[in-house]
Amino acid sequence: MNEQQNVSIIEVGPRDGLQNEKGLVTTENKLTFIKMLLDAGITSIEPTSFVHPKYVPQMGDAAALYSELIKRVDPLIYNLSCLVPNVKGYEQSQKVGVKEIAIFSAASDSFSKKNVHATVDESLANLKKVAAMAKSDGVKVRGYVSTVFGCPYEGQVDIDRVHQVCETLFNYGCYEVSLGDTIGVATPGQVQQIIPAFKKNFDLNKLAFHFHDTRGIAMANVLTAFNGGARIFDASAGGLGGCPYAPGSTGNVATEDLVYMFNSMGVNSGIDLAKLLDASLFILTALGKRSPSRLVRSLRKVEGAYCEF
Amino acid sequence: MNEQQNVSIIEVGPRDGLQNEKGLVTTENKLTFIKMLLDAGITSIEPTSFVHPKYVPQMGDAAALYSELIKRVDPLIYNLSCLVPNVKGYEQSQKVGVKEIAIFSAASDSFSKKNVHATVDESLANLKKVAAMAKSDGVKVRGYVSTVFGCPYEGQVDIDRVHQVCETLFNYGCYEVSLGDTIGVATPGQVQQIIPAFKKNFDLNKLAFHFHDTRGIAMANVLTAFNGGARIFDASAGGLGGCPYAPGSTGNVATEDLVYMFNSMGVNSGIDLAKLLDASLFILTALGKRSPSRLVRSLRKVEGAYCEF
Repeated sequence: MNEQQNVSIIEVGPRDGLQNEKGLVTTENKLTFIKMLLDAGITSIEPTSFVHPKYVPQMGDAAALYSELIKRVDPLIYNLSCLVPNVKGYEQSQKVGVKEIAIFSAASDSFSKKNVHATVDESLANLKKVAAMAKSDGVKVRGYVSTVFGCPYEGQVDIDRVHQVCETLFNYGCYEVSLGDTIGVATPGQVQQIIPAFKKNFDLNKLAFHFHDTRGIAMANVLTAFNGGARIFDASAGGLGGCPYAPGSTGNVATEDLVYMFNSMGVNSGIDLAKLLDASLFILTALGKRSPSRLVRSLRKVEGAYCEF
Repeated sequence: MNEQQNVSIIEVGPRDGLQNEKGLVTTENKLTFIKMLLDAGITSIEPTSFVHPKYVPQMGDAAALYSELIKRVDPLIYNLSCLVPNVKGYEQSQKVGVKEIAIFSAASDSFSKKNVHATVDESLANLKKVAAMAKSDGVKVRGYVSTVFGCPYEGQVDIDRVHQVCETLFNYGCYEVSLGDTIGVATPGQVQQIIPAFKKNFDLNKLAFHFHDTRGIAMANVLTAFNGGARIFDASAGGLGGCPYAPGSTGNVATEDLVYMFNSMGVNSGIDLAKLLDASLFILTALGKRSPSRLVRSLRKVEGAYCEF
């Protein structure tokens, strides 16, 4: 039916996923998880974040993890983007030679204040310094905008404000900006409405869509974005994740759900679903939890091999 | 963005939903549930089925329920379609004056044999008698084809076979045929492929799509079908349901999920989401269970009123 089309999936499970799990995962298990994800064909992955361990103890091993990771995986072949919240985080990331960072700002002040104790403008001013340092160090920068589709404190977020934040991040030198549905309130109708405005102001090939499946509608949002021309999606293996500062949010949309759907449509993500499931089941077992993804759960039912793959 | 468009949602919760719940619901609670669904704006509903109580004890009160229901609700205003598996079931339905029935056949022999102990052809031959009796009695008939998108025993089902079964049901006088993804294995790619073939052979305005959310992809399937021109969808309040003869199947797609998505797209279902949620929470409370719908679960978090509605 379709011509062959491609999508890029950015795997955020090791960072956005694991940072919200109660259980601490050992550095060695994280490394195995990341290696399995790369073996499944994932080429862009967020391995960790350089945040203060007081706030996110799950990422307390960022430096050790990254140092060990680049002994096993070539950071020039894979995109191994590490989240940094500020100059201090950036400096720490550079001590271990991080080649790509991700910076983030919310689009709503209330969320920004709760999350990073700064307004959006203050937060952007801080990021400007980080981005400038990265530029002079030859470090790639990816950007995130959170609360694009709604804020837990303010409700609907002004789309012009989202565009401003996006534009600022591009001006700072971000090669790609990810639009976060931080609390999982995006709807297909909203995505349908929002896409033409983004298309007008930005290159859709530089915008990623980052959905959470709080209301079970993430896959319909992904499909709507895809139909509107989006080709880059963030996702989390097994559907791990959430946001500690976003009340009621649940996990990121599962990478498996995306690969399964795109496979069915003849759209290539370059990811091997069976190997991806192996990676997810490895980390889920380490965490002692079930995947929130119905797909992952239903495919576990078949003994020995994953049904149909 | 869109012109105003309409969809019809056929509520199957009281039958397809409750028949698969372990707990028995009292006739009075079922009546309250149905009344609340109708009050929410639903106009087509399957209140019960006239099957042998040995096989489906949950529907053992079919005659009593229907008799009482039509004292409270006008069966000439609402579509109150009762499932009947055979002539005996039909005869029982007529003792209480049922004005519309639903008949069903699988599209795969293995499933048909397990479900009704007859091949598809044998099953259709039985239904022919039922449909003829209904015709002479002036009773409306709706048809179901199960295993359209896959059979738990045979895997992929031949689409030509599905078309034959559909055509047979239309020839028997069905005013509408519902295409069942009985075990929840349909994918957006498959729906996208299947729709043009159905469009060629049938009137899409006489075909309903009946998805189960086993793999978390039902809403993307609904959206794909809608984008392809489908306008009639079966769903179950709160996402109740499943199929006792279909291993691994989970609930029907939740009516709430559909209404929520279509509302966001400016597509009118005529259903009030808040009142629908009231109905679902009533029956979920009676069953002592949580909804499998993430939407229903996330909206319960907000005290007093449903978030955003």
